[in-house]
Amino acid sequence: MELNMSEITKELLYTGKAKDVYKTENENEVIIKFRDDITALDGGRKDTLSKKGEYNALISAKLFQILEERGIKTQFIRLVEPNEMLTKSLDMIPLEVICRNIATGSLLRKYPFHRNQELNPPIIQFDYKNDVYHDPMLNDSIITALKIASQEQLDKIREITHVINKVLSKFLKEKGLILVDFKIEFGLDTEGNIVLGDEISPDTTRLWDSETLDNFDKDIFRKGEEGVVDAYHKVVDLVLTTEEKEKWNVEKFED
Amino acid sequence: MELNMSEITKELLYTGKAKDVYKTENENEVIIKFRDDITALDGGRKDTLSKKGEYNALISAKLFQILEERGIKTQFIRLVEPNEMLTKSLDMIPLEVICRNIATGSLLRKYPFHRNQELNPPIIQFDYKNDVYHDPMLNDSIITALKIASQEQLDKIREITHVINKVLSKFLKEKGLILVDFKIEFGLDTEGNIVLGDEISPDTTRLWDSETLDNFDKDIFRKGEEGVVDAYHKVVDLVLTTEEKEKWNVEKFED
Repeated sequence: MELNMSEITKELLYTGKAKDVYKTENENEVIIKFRDDITALDGGRKDTLSKKGEYNALISAKLFQILEERGIKTQFIRLVEPNEMLTKSLDMIPLEVICRNIATGSLLRKYPFHRNQELNPPIIQFDYKNDVYHDPMLNDSIITALKIASQEQLDKIREITHVINKVLSKFLKEKGLILVDFKIEFGLDTEGNIVLGDEISPDTTRLWDSETLDNFDKDIFRKGEEGVVDAYHKVVDLVLTTEEKEKWNVEKFED
Repeated sequence: MELNMSEITKELLYTGKAKDVYKTENENEVIIKFRDDITALDGGRKDTLSKKGEYNALISAKLFQILEERGIKTQFIRLVEPNEMLTKSLDMIPLEVICRNIATGSLLRKYPFHRNQELNPPIIQFDYKNDVYHDPMLNDSIITALKIASQEQLDKIREITHVINKVLSKFLKEKGLILVDFKIEFGLDTEGNIVLGDEISPDTTRLWDSETLDNFDKDIFRKGEEGVVDAYHKVVDLVLTTEEKEKWNVEKFED
């Protein structure tokens, strides 16, 4: 009999801005619980939005599966609850790997790109996951000096990120969404392999409707607008199959 | 007969924060005049310090000559006045190429390095020379997307910068100075070669006394302390030969 992880007492290993990580019986596996909390603007805007955790876990699980099918190693094992993911335990690399296909957001404030300028090849940027220093941008030379990762690991991360971008852009395009940009995180498994971890959700990507260019992502929250959860629900509706939506009891999306 | 450029009317091509660039009779050559103006803190601190321009020109000329002897292409042709340099005209690349051997200054504010931590290999960083955007840090991916330089040019610039660092660190060490960090700029000559331009002076380097670790550079000015010009004079005294000092009528340095 398989234990439902949410029914047993779990030891909290780590709590982040929107997710908690729990121990399991197996030391090589952890449960990631997606909470309903949402933050933006370096912690300056916070809220709790019912169902957000569930939608992000469902979307992440789906995208991780798509990537696994294309040969990308991910942390994902399986969903145990709509908002709880059983994953491989990773030694996380404290980098936010940002990949941009279209110039928008902070890129426009920092550099003279045209709004919505296509970036081909995409821009890849590494920010330091470090609250005290406010997640500053890095370069390879600074990363290796800080011993965050080796040059070989950075080259590999860049290579994998380009593949992830191609796979997800294609998949999402078929669903009517443009993958404008995204932030991903990597970790090392017990064998030292670089493995995709964390999440890929509307909290960590910019997803635009292919026709209207409307946001279906955290930019709605950043702008202080209503409809955040509805937008995330729409993404679930677009990317999951009917069977997957039935399995996880996703409510019907009504536009 | 050679014309003294300062005696003829010169057409101003460009004026920067501390230097002016003038046309010459030869379209492939320009005169760079080092002014006595000094600025820091993104323009927040300004002053005019008598002799500063002359000392920076003399130091830059000397260091460019040392580099030329070691095979590095520079803009430098010759000094025409103690504060005026005849140079090759370059199409400047708007990058501040920063090379750091010791962690200090803005690096400590932005990242968790230890104060005075040795950086070996040195950190090389590219900032965008752009007043409107306040000289933001770049990475290779952003530089190529903005078409500031090609990846091939960046690789070459990095390679040359490492050589410049080695040559100047060695030369200055023999004079009792530690080359802590420096900012250089490159341009393209008419044949598309990457050529070192601008200046290398106490305005654009951090130079520490090998024994006391006292600053002999613009950090004195940044801190709002006295003795800026005396420190620059000391550097002239250390790096120029007796003949060079006599030729340019450098006053005797008295400690």
